[in-house]
Amino acid sequence: METKHKYLTNTWYVAALSTEVDGEALFKRTLLETPVLIYRKADGTPVAMRDRCPHRFVPLSMGTRDGDQVVCPYHGLTFDCSGKCTRNPHGNQAIPAAAKVRSYPLLERHGFIWIWMGDAPADESALPDFGTLDVGHENGIAHTYMKWPCYYELITDNVMDLSHVDHVHGEIITTRGQLSPMVPKLEEENGQVAVQWNWSQTPPMLIFNDFLPEPGVAARHFVRVTWSAPTNLQLTIGATQDDDAPLDYEHTVGQYDLHACTPEDADNTHYFFATRRNHIEEDAEFNKMKIEAMHNAFADEDGPILKAVHQTMETTDFFSLGPVLISSDLGPVRVRRLLAQMIEREQAAKTTAAGQPATA
Amino acid sequence: METKHKYLTNTWYVAALSTEVDGEALFKRTLLETPVLIYRKADGTPVAMRDRCPHRFVPLSMGTRDGDQVVCPYHGLTFDCSGKCTRNPHGNQAIPAAAKVRSYPLLERHGFIWIWMGDAPADESALPDFGTLDVGHENGIAHTYMKWPCYYELITDNVMDLSHVDHVHGEIITTRGQLSPMVPKLEEENGQVAVQWNWSQTPPMLIFNDFLPEPGVAARHFVRVTWSAPTNLQLTIGATQDDDAPLDYEHTVGQYDLHACTPEDADNTHYFFATRRNHIEEDAEFNKMKIEAMHNAFADEDGPILKAVHQTMETTDFFSLGPVLISSDLGPVRVRRLLAQMIEREQAAKTTAAGQPATA
Amino acid sequence: METKHKYLTNTWYVAALSTEVDGEALFKRTLLETPVLIYRKADGTPVAMRDRCPHRFVPLSMGTRDGDQVVCPYHGLTFDCSGKCTRNPHGNQAIPAAAKVRSYPLLERHGFIWIWMGDAPADESALPDFGTLDVGHENGIAHTYMKWPCYYELITDNVMDLSHVDHVHGEIITTRGQLSPMVPKLEEENGQVAVQWNWSQTPPMLIFNDFLPEPGVAARHFVRVTWSAPTNLQLTIGATQDDDAPLDYEHTVGQYDLHACTPEDADNTHYFFATRRNHIEEDAEFNKMKIEAMHNAFADEDGPILKAVHQTMETTDFFSLGPVLISSDLGPVRVRRLLAQMIEREQAAKTTAAGQPATA
Repeated sequence: METKHKYLTNTWYVAALSTEVDGEALFKRTLLETPVLIYRKADGTPVAMRDRCPHRFVPLSMGTRDGDQVVCPYHGLTFDCSGKCTRNPHGNQAIPAAAKVRSYPLLERHGFIWIWMGDAPADESALPDFGTLDVGHENGIAHTYMKWPCYYELITDNVMDLSHVDHVHGEIITTRGQLSPMVPKLEEENGQVAVQWNWSQTPPMLIFNDFLPEPGVAARHFVRVTWSAPTNLQLTIGATQDDDAPLDYEHTVGQYDLHACTPEDADNTHYFFATRRNHIEEDAEFNKMKIEAMHNAFADEDGPILKAVHQTMETTDFFSLGPVLISSDLGPVRVRRLLAQMIEREQAAKTTAAGQPATA
Repeated sequence: METKHKYLTNTWYVAALSTEVDGEALFKRTLLETPVLIYRKADGTPVAMRDRCPHRFVPLSMGTRDGDQVVCPYHGLTFDCSGKCTRNPHGNQAIPAAAKVRSYPLLERHGFIWIWMGDAPADESALPDFGTLDVGHENGIAHTYMKWPCYYELITDNVMDLSHVDHVHGEIITTRGQLSPMVPKLEEENGQVAVQWNWSQTPPMLIFNDFLPEPGVAARHFVRVTWSAPTNLQLTIGATQDDDAPLDYEHTVGQYDLHACTPEDADNTHYFFATRRNHIEEDAEFNKMKIEAMHNAFADEDGPILKAVHQTMETTDFFSLGPVLISSDLGPVRVRRLLAQMIEREQAAKTTAAGQPATA
Repeated sequence: METKHKYLTNTWYVAALSTEVDGEALFKRTLLETPVLIYRKADGTPVAMRDRCPHRFVPLSMGTRDGDQVVCPYHGLTFDCSGKCTRNPHGNQAIPAAAKVRSYPLLERHGFIWIWMGDAPADESALPDFGTLDVGHENGIAHTYMKWPCYYELITDNVMDLSHVDHVHGEIITTRGQLSPMVPKLEEENGQVAVQWNWSQTPPMLIFNDFLPEPGVAARHFVRVTWSAPTNLQLTIGATQDDDAPLDYEHTVGQYDLHACTPEDADNTHYFFATRRNHIEEDAEFNKMKIEAMHNAFADEDGPILKAVHQTMETTDFFSLGPVLISSDLGPVRVRRLLAQMIEREQAAKTTAAGQPATA
């Protein structure tokens, strides 16, 4: 896969919400600068392939279904789920050996369809375990998606550095200024980077206040964000009024979220989001309100800032601009360095594989 | 003429429909990346020149007519039909020797205005004979134009390979699947490339069925497309129920069409089209319906595919993408190779003429 | 300051009309490809700084005021008027030494806010004296602004060469064809270039006719345009029926205008304009009508031509296109040469300062 920009490719990205790929439809989305066709087989399994007929480069997503196969709208070449051409209606109807579309391994997990776009064999075990999303009532989880006009690392930065919360966001998740003065605790393990803030506040964060035993009374809070490559940001946040309770999802009134970003290209990002909560789980109305509020908080508050930052930077190379760093950058900077190393390593391996010096 | 992209220039392109250049109006169109002004002299003869005053580079099409001359709207410099400056109202009113606009030879034929934009002397004999368009009742011919956002060679490919008909188009010109399995007969003579398909079908093609002696009964059909440089595609199609009739325009119920493409630039094409028929020639209403149907067939059916192909390719260099070719590509591929050779030869001659090695 | 295009920077450009920067508002405008924040301190003094937080490159114009300081909307870093960071709410709240935004010296003169964007110390004396704008009744002066999609030098050319007046503009300022045949008198002094035309016409120019002693009767006219770097065009125009009166603003019925252009980038120009007159100075209605007429004359008459020229040229390098020059180009060509020399000299000094050979 040749792209103008360099991305980590031997990894899982979210390609779509499970609900976006529906029925017989041919769904298309550009991921890592590559147009991809996704559809579900009759048995519901999603499949993905490059959205480009190898004959005359028509997007196959403009075509039609023939059972589990897809038919090019221009000359009727037909491809099976693996991207193999199975029918050529022309001339002697022989199928050229090269008539193959690149297909991409998919996994469907946690309400997302994940795609592996690299050249190395897809490795299921490389997808981190976000199983907590699946535990609980169906009205206790919600998903959303938006495409945003900024480089994906700006969104990673934003979630890894929650010190912006009191500056950017409104009353509903205010920490009463507690987050900014804290230097988050950074932990790194198995290629994952976690930052955690613990604090007390009165009244408790408004998203939890009503679900605590004593609304309005001081509560201990925590928020922990764990990054895993390429752009998975697992955020857990909760509050408790029990002095002995551990600060984790099980022992607090809290929520377990996943933010996942997939670059469309260097200027646009597919931003996927899921939130699971452990309180009033069965309330469908509340669930709907909650995901809308979280969607709009980004669209109206962080989002416009990140869009403006992207335009102002005029580059994706953050460090080349000589940013003035502060303590809250600890997490995002560590993640940027790690991801850059991983991409560099992958590119070097490609170059070596291609018979060129790795240190070109 | 310097252009970003390389085109064949010592050749005739359609610049406009005859009806587009009307009365006193100053008509402008960008051809081969070059803005061109076209207008008719008082005697009706069309003239063309670069749409750029040599003084301060104002488009002369923004100016006014002074008889057969054109007056620049900025400082009143006046140019005759040959592009020579004939009036400078400034200072001592001397006309600078260099005050010339490049003019372009035109031919008006078959309802089109043809332009020669190359540096070699214009050669009338280089325009193929499409005289059949001119024979018959005035209601037996119709013209149309559309600008399309794709590279011009994609349109050439499309017309040279009619195997797409049954896959892309609707009931009205269906061949009942006959075209795809055939390998067209390819003939090459005098720099022209022709492909021809002959077949029988029942019922006959719907555009001819009602005009045949026995509607609904089997008829022999043919379609022949002849390419000549740079992008003239002369298509004749017809049907007959006379077993002894030759398969040509004179001996069938048929039509004689010309498709001609002129690049605006590497991303946009001026697509000109004429159709002449040998049946119900006097019916103006049918004539109008017919050209609209053909215009819309492209705009609604092939056109969206070619636009998507252009965007997906992200290059004009078809072969660089390693296309998987099939039997129906015989014609288009031969044409692409021939045209590429002609452009290469022309570029080499230019380089030699400029005193640089031809093999730079 | 790194820009894609080369501009003169050690000079004063108009950044805004005084009225555009109002009250508590954070005003932003891109000047010389650089986003700039401008606002007024509580005492009314305008200040300017780069519109980019040095931490994460958020436009500070999206932030809020804290007295005379500006607060970044993302993480709350606060900057004083000099661009110095005065507050970091994060971690130990230490302020990084590098946390500075580049500020720009401003001058507020004649209803405009002027900015110095170069690296050399700002030199107040480098701003030419346009004091005549300030003399007279408040209804005797008006200002306007428009952003125009062309390179700024095309506007300089346009004002330095008024021979276009009879060709481009309407009845209200016609010279009855007198201007074109004249070669303007060119004077150059102290780095300023002036062109002057003197002539008589009957009836007098319509903008002055009603204010002369004998409307409709012959009057002597003059127009003088004085360019000073970078793009100040001071135009005085007047008419008199007194045979002995000197042809200047004091002794004629006339007006004293300033056109000033500031590049946004190579494709867009901020065009500022002020006009002061010495007749019916107290008439607010007339004042409003006059500035609207002048604004619209450009927007409707010269402006569309300059926009088309910019598109047709496809370069900012006028001389590279080999323009055919005529006598009326005397002024604009001299100005282009001078400005190019000044820019070249400034660039060479920068290169030398950076320890690289000045003649690289």
